Amino acid sequence: MEIPLKLLSGSANHKLAKEIADYLGIELSKMLLSRFSDGEIRVQIEESMRGGDIFVIQSLSNPINDHFMELVLMLDAIKRASAYRITAVIPYFAYARQDRKDKPRVPISARVLADMITIAGAQRALIVDLHSPQIQGFFNIPVDNLLALPVLHDYIKYKIDPKNTVIVSPDAGGAERARQLANKLGCNIAIIYKRRPEPNKAEVFDVIGNIDGKDAVIIDDIIDTAGTLIAATNMLLSKGAKSVRALATHGVLSGPALERINNSNLEEVVITNTICQIGKESPKINVVSIAPIIGEAIKRIYENSSVSSLFV
Amino acid sequence: MEIPLKLLSGSANHKLAKEIADYLGIELSKMLLSRFSDGEIRVQIEESMRGGDIFVIQSLSNPINDHFMELVLMLDAIKRASAYRITAVIPYFAYARQDRKDKPRVPISARVLADMITIAGAQRALIVDLHSPQIQGFFNIPVDNLLALPVLHDYIKYKIDPKNTVIVSPDAGGAERARQLANKLGCNIAIIYKRRPEPNKAEVFDVIGNIDGKDAVIIDDIIDTAGTLIAATNMLLSKGAKSVRALATHGVLSGPALERINNSNLEEVVITNTICQIGKESPKINVVSIAPIIGEAIKRIYENSSVSSLFV
Amino acid sequence: MEIPLKLLSGSANHKLAKEIADYLGIELSKMLLSRFSDGEIRVQIEESMRGGDIFVIQSLSNPINDHFMELVLMLDAIKRASAYRITAVIPYFAYARQDRKDKPRVPISARVLADMITIAGAQRALIVDLHSPQIQGFFNIPVDNLLALPVLHDYIKYKIDPKNTVIVSPDAGGAERARQLANKLGCNIAIIYKRRPEPNKAEVFDVIGNIDGKDAVIIDDIIDTAGTLIAATNMLLSKGAKSVRALATHGVLSGPALERINNSNLEEVVITNTICQIGKESPKINVVSIAPIIGEAIKRIYENSSVSSLFV
Amino acid sequence: MEIPLKLLSGSANHKLAKEIADYLGIELSKMLLSRFSDGEIRVQIEESMRGGDIFVIQSLSNPINDHFMELVLMLDAIKRASAYRITAVIPYFAYARQDRKDKPRVPISARVLADMITIAGAQRALIVDLHSPQIQGFFNIPVDNLLALPVLHDYIKYKIDPKNTVIVSPDAGGAERARQLANKLGCNIAIIYKRRPEPNKAEVFDVIGNIDGKDAVIIDDIIDTAGTLIAATNMLLSKGAKSVRALATHGVLSGPALERINNSNLEEVVITNTICQIGKESPKINVVSIAPIIGEAIKRIYENSSVSSLFV
Amino acid sequence: MEIPLKLLSGSANHKLAKEIADYLGIELSKMLLSRFSDGEIRVQIEESMRGGDIFVIQSLSNPINDHFMELVLMLDAIKRASAYRITAVIPYFAYARQDRKDKPRVPISARVLADMITIAGAQRALIVDLHSPQIQGFFNIPVDNLLALPVLHDYIKYKIDPKNTVIVSPDAGGAERARQLANKLGCNIAIIYKRRPEPNKAEVFDVIGNIDGKDAVIIDDIIDTAGTLIAATNMLLSKGAKSVRALATHGVLSGPALERINNSNLEEVVITNTICQIGKESPKINVVSIAPIIGEAIKRIYENSSVSSLFV
Amino acid sequence: MEIPLKLLSGSANHKLAKEIADYLGIELSKMLLSRFSDGEIRVQIEESMRGGDIFVIQSLSNPINDHFMELVLMLDAIKRASAYRITAVIPYFAYARQDRKDKPRVPISARVLADMITIAGAQRALIVDLHSPQIQGFFNIPVDNLLALPVLHDYIKYKIDPKNTVIVSPDAGGAERARQLANKLGCNIAIIYKRRPEPNKAEVFDVIGNIDGKDAVIIDDIIDTAGTLIAATNMLLSKGAKSVRALATHGVLSGPALERINNSNLEEVVITNTICQIGKESPKINVVSIAPIIGEAIKRIYENSSVSSLFV
Repeated sequence: MEIPLKLLSGSANHKLAKEIADYLGIELSKMLLSRFSDGEIRVQIEESMRGGDIFVIQSLSNPINDHFMELVLMLDAIKRASAYRITAVIPYFAYARQDRKDKPRVPISARVLADMITIAGAQRALIVDLHSPQIQGFFNIPVDNLLALPVLHDYIKYKIDPKNTVIVSPDAGGAERARQLANKLGCNIAIIYKRRPEPNKAEVFDVIGNIDGKDAVIIDDIIDTAGTLIAATNMLLSKGAKSVRALATHGVLSGPALERINNSNLEEVVITNTICQIGKESPKINVVSIAPIIGEAIKRIYENSSVSSLFV
Repeated sequence: MEIPLKLLSGSANHKLAKEIADYLGIELSKMLLSRFSDGEIRVQIEESMRGGDIFVIQSLSNPINDHFMELVLMLDAIKRASAYRITAVIPYFAYARQDRKDKPRVPISARVLADMITIAGAQRALIVDLHSPQIQGFFNIPVDNLLALPVLHDYIKYKIDPKNTVIVSPDAGGAERARQLANKLGCNIAIIYKRRPEPNKAEVFDVIGNIDGKDAVIIDDIIDTAGTLIAATNMLLSKGAKSVRALATHGVLSGPALERINNSNLEEVVITNTICQIGKESPKINVVSIAPIIGEAIKRIYENSSVSSLFV
Repeated sequence: MEIPLKLLSGSANHKLAKEIADYLGIELSKMLLSRFSDGEIRVQIEESMRGGDIFVIQSLSNPINDHFMELVLMLDAIKRASAYRITAVIPYFAYARQDRKDKPRVPISARVLADMITIAGAQRALIVDLHSPQIQGFFNIPVDNLLALPVLHDYIKYKIDPKNTVIVSPDAGGAERARQLANKLGCNIAIIYKRRPEPNKAEVFDVIGNIDGKDAVIIDDIIDTAGTLIAATNMLLSKGAKSVRALATHGVLSGPALERINNSNLEEVVITNTICQIGKESPKINVVSIAPIIGEAIKRIYENSSVSSLFV
Repeated sequence: MEIPLKLLSGSANHKLAKEIADYLGIELSKMLLSRFSDGEIRVQIEESMRGGDIFVIQSLSNPINDHFMELVLMLDAIKRASAYRITAVIPYFAYARQDRKDKPRVPISARVLADMITIAGAQRALIVDLHSPQIQGFFNIPVDNLLALPVLHDYIKYKIDPKNTVIVSPDAGGAERARQLANKLGCNIAIIYKRRPEPNKAEVFDVIGNIDGKDAVIIDDIIDTAGTLIAATNMLLSKGAKSVRALATHGVLSGPALERINNSNLEEVVITNTICQIGKESPKINVVSIAPIIGEAIKRIYENSSVSSLFV
Repeated sequence: MEIPLKLLSGSANHKLAKEIADYLGIELSKMLLSRFSDGEIRVQIEESMRGGDIFVIQSLSNPINDHFMELVLMLDAIKRASAYRITAVIPYFAYARQDRKDKPRVPISARVLADMITIAGAQRALIVDLHSPQIQGFFNIPVDNLLALPVLHDYIKYKIDPKNTVIVSPDAGGAERARQLANKLGCNIAIIYKRRPEPNKAEVFDVIGNIDGKDAVIIDDIIDTAGTLIAATNMLLSKGAKSVRALATHGVLSGPALERINNSNLEEVVITNTICQIGKESPKINVVSIAPIIGEAIKRIYENSSVSSLFV
Repeated sequence: MEIPLKLLSGSANHKLAKEIADYLGIELSKMLLSRFSDGEIRVQIEESMRGGDIFVIQSLSNPINDHFMELVLMLDAIKRASAYRITAVIPYFAYARQDRKDKPRVPISARVLADMITIAGAQRALIVDLHSPQIQGFFNIPVDNLLALPVLHDYIKYKIDPKNTVIVSPDAGGAERARQLANKLGCNIAIIYKRRPEPNKAEVFDVIGNIDGKDAVIIDDIIDTAGTLIAATNMLLSKGAKSVRALATHGVLSGPALERINNSNLEEVVITNTICQIGKESPKINVVSIAPIIGEAIKRIYENSSVSSLFV
């Protein structure tokens, strides 16, 4: 029995899904996806799923909860339609920063999502740049965590002079990510952190590592409201950095983010299209496409060849 | 060890939760519940839940998916905070009309919700007037399905003359609900349905049962856009009904519903407060409170006395 | 690797299983199926199941509990014998009327059966005319709910004159089923229901919709003791119906059913063979075969083509 | 909160349940338990179960599958009625001899039952003399396996002279059980087994151990059709045994068992009342009651005191 | 899509895994398997597992817990690497003697292992001579229990004269195993057991069945410390046996076993290589290989042909 | 019913368990815990667990796998002995560094352990300083992650002058931990990291942040072989640090760790007793006790009072 490859797209990032389908040389499967007047989501798939190797592409971008509910309802519909295998392709996995109990009586929301995705019918997941790699362990199904670093690195390497560039982590927790990019480029690193000068005094922004006269490249996985990013940029410039750029995988860009970036002293902000950027265009923002990486991973999963070798 | 009773309210219907708390003579437990700029929900409970008998009140009203996600994240937070027992109190259970595969390749969304609520940590559920009673069987935890019929009956019985009143179901599927109210009041019934006069012709509204010169009372579980309700009202009046009233448990009232009702020939619409009606006031709509029934049910669950006897 | 199709039959309806096997052009797999003297069921499959696409046909007819236990033990034997995929084919799914808590402290038996069938090893189910479509949601495995309406419709359409025929639901809950057949045939409907003339008085049978001088066709999913059916027939005739026929998918025909039908004023009773009718022959009962529909569905599942298109 | 102790009895052995209730000084809880005309079981519990420590007594005697279905439906009803804790008390656990794959493609029926009992809602089980002790491991809930040996030993020890008595296992698999009784009484043992005199010849009954001139006491866990027992008795007598008695926990006594025993040369057969013996009276059979042991175990479970110390 | 067959070996019995690979004509897949300085096991598989039919060979020999942890970590790694199907091949399944609660408050360790192996990712298991066949029922995945008896029988049948040989079980629980070998060879049996001569006296070794002047062959599934074996040998010789041999599937040979066997009056000890015997060579011990049986079973599982027919 | 508090200790850190029992003013429950000659672990609990609130204390120190197996077998024994509630107290949770797929085809071992602990019977866990806080999300049972930072802070704050001290993270991933201690003490931070000077060149140790003339305090969660620690110490001293101390929660101290520390230029190493340090005494190592924190947490869990308030 031949197992057909089928691609379905939720409403979160139809453009990316289309690019992936083009990469694979197939059409997106037809599906009704709408909302009732009361807010309920309505899903009806219009092609047979029976015995297919189904990939459901849905980014958990804003409105996050609606996009999430679309995803689980699509999964249930596919499961009940007797698919052979279901892979949830989630270019941006939201709630990933809620991955621990950093305060008493908070949820570990990322685990809740992982469980709900699994119980709804996903048998495997394909995600880009999980906020923390441990989230793979929140799932008990295979998860391929695709890395955007190669794409970002390919973009930035022609723009900088390693000798005069410093890769900056915007907080202590991201030091390892900065180190990885720095080592790939042959740059030094610096780390911004919130320092409390004395017990019981307020925390202030500070930086360790040499930035004086350097071109700074801040790297983070997510740019959300851009508040921290702008504060970091200003501090780096005030402490002598020659220029500041920012790289990030996921351009959430919520609230005042766009305005802040447009009005900032940032040279440039580079993000990928894991989140749909239509309507968020800015002269300072460049978007590089993650579609070939996702498309190639889907192709390899479908053909049972190695996904990890994709990154060698 | 004493087991304290604690009540938490999601943001869907804080007024109802307050009424229930008042009924029980306790305060709602303190909790931070907000949304981040990117749409993620943020939950932090500010009182110890350890060893408590916790009731989380959340109606799945519009925005449904946000309210649902609030609910599951609250459940996870409570579970990880070592509660003794967790009951999800869901006055209005959304997606309940998606309770079957009436077309190929649609989800059974109500089952998906039931599974997600259970996996997030609910050990029992308290729901008002499930759209179909079979949804209880979607859960494998105990579900108490409270009925609003007594409240609606108590309201309407003083307003009608049974001899001259007919209870009307707005569709064939609701005939049994109409029969129950009719038998409680000693009225006759009529049933509206979509009739196809001949094969391949369009369906038209029709009614069986005698309505001529009668005061008609339409009963349904949900009033959503009110489109069907208004069409039914007009048909009943055109076929000789003297007046038309409508009763329903859940006043979803989405989209044009309010305007339609206000401009209609309906005498009156009676609903309960399972869904928050703040901002939906209308001279034609009367709201009766379900809080005493929910409050009493919580009291009995907490005290381990019979909930079913509540309805004798 | 080729995946062989294999059919096994429990003891409930071997004739139907044989018809299905003939439709598919294969033999039923060999199996010992007997009972020990103490009532324990003994199952031993006599062909390799390894890597096969196995369909187990078992109707849950009387003796229901023995037939159910046969089914789960067959499923366990097949699961432990390393089948590729196991489908439980259940032409008549018993306990389906116990699908809700209509009284306090009753089981939701249909859910219990669904869980037990799943835990024993079924990975998908094929059922004919579930009593309530929501029971699909009691399962978390794919369920194909085949409809007998087309078969019954094909039989009855040549026997009636739509203009002079009324389709009758024997109770308020079945109004939707009557509506569907009526709209397919272009007839009117009527609904029988238990009316309580006044509060605290006993309920009496009544009917809404015009039946005077009409040929009545009662439609239901199950005919069990036929008590309600006979009472309905008599009332329809006493209220002026010209003739009464009955259609039903599942001919349970327990207790006095056969005698009642034989002695009744019914023109004819039409059922399918989801339940074995050997030994229940009657001049008033005509049985139409469901085997081609089940056979075709199995063929399509095996070949991974669409089952839903079967009903277009 | 006080947790009430409640006892429910299925229909399999109401007399034993009554004896247990008497031992505990409580009444059996009220419950409707009947069968519909089509064979479906109907359960409705007529007392509140909310918050109770519920013990459901049901022996899996013939008709086994009906009794089993009664049990799981009672469990589901109790679970959905919000009991605090549910214990399935199963004096005789049927299908226990189907505890392994001794042939290809047979079920491990005892495991299927264990899973179904657990999924239906039992949180702990109380069983008497499991056929093989490993069946405890088929459950993942706590199982107390009460032993009938003390009761049988107390009965037999006054009837025999250890010096002239030999305890006999009727097959090789039961040698350990015979050894335990023999060591408790200070007797020798003998073992009956099926011997194949030469490859490809038929197996014949044989015995090892000295029985000549001895009073033989055969011990087994179950007496089913009594065929093996009678054959063993005759062989022992033909090989010189002075007399033969039989002890067994579970008197299944199916098919020709009673007639065989009545017509046999057995001195006496001693069984317990794990299975209801009403209607199976025989001058050769003596029944000893297991009720005090089960009653005491329930009392200790309810009071959270040690059950194992019951056997010291 | 072609499904490749892949074999991985844990560190417990690499020699056996190599023999199996040779039988199948394939190479063992490459894997890093080592221990960190702190005792943690480190697993990294160096070939793609994606879509493969993977067999992991690991015997649970001493150090048992390290070998077990290797097994579950390999299973998790393979599961997360998106294998098509995972079979745990466990030639010796340790903790199998802890298969019941023979004392209060002990674990049923074999069930714990079964659950952990399943949750880690095994979808089927292949085991040689489970200590008790009921352990198959501890799993809910298919288990093929390969028997070593044919291999041992083939070895011993040329060495004995059935007329003058008696097959001996070293304890009452093993009587059935002795009976099976005896019937295959056409010999008589004898059973050693611990007898308590009188209540409250110490138990002593005794034997039933005729051994005088016979060549005795003790059969057991496991030889561990060999203490019981040596005691049995001495008793048999003291009671007149002409010679004593021992057969066993699993040569655990812990503690003083080797020394005891070397210094004993045993003619010969025959075991299989389910456990690696490198470094345990002895002039009295002969090892027969189980590799062809395991290899053939893997071949048949991979090809979906019958495994049970392997033993006809 | 009163619920007794009971404490059991595995063999990993009996001294700590004793300290905790002393803190609580109770005795450790009696238990046999030994190993059979073949390496199997043997557990038998010698006190009734029925209805108790049971805490099992077991650190997963070397031999890790044996200690882990002890833990799960104790959990199973307690579960089957009908405990009311079971908490696994795991002062040191091994395999925590294997919390992600940092290479293809490796296990997420920490998740495997979490699943196995849960399936064996733990209903809640109490752990000290999880390597990554996300591991809490590997569990679906409540986990209290106790922090050792307060204990280490209390020790170190009297020994340093904040003005002249720099808190050093030994790698980029630990920057956040260093920041937290620094902010508590009012010190600056520095971060050691592996820098690749140019693409394709080897990585070298480097540091960012000012250490010249400062007293350096390295903080980490685990000291294992101490290789990194010594290299860091030497680099800090070579780059001008005045002195180097090290703080860590878990003193794994495997392989050459002790010798390296003793021979190093470290001023002092401070660890807690989550791992038993008997036999690892060193003039350079000071051990502070975590027993009061664990003891207090157990007390609060038992009394259902807040554990989080323990850290305010």
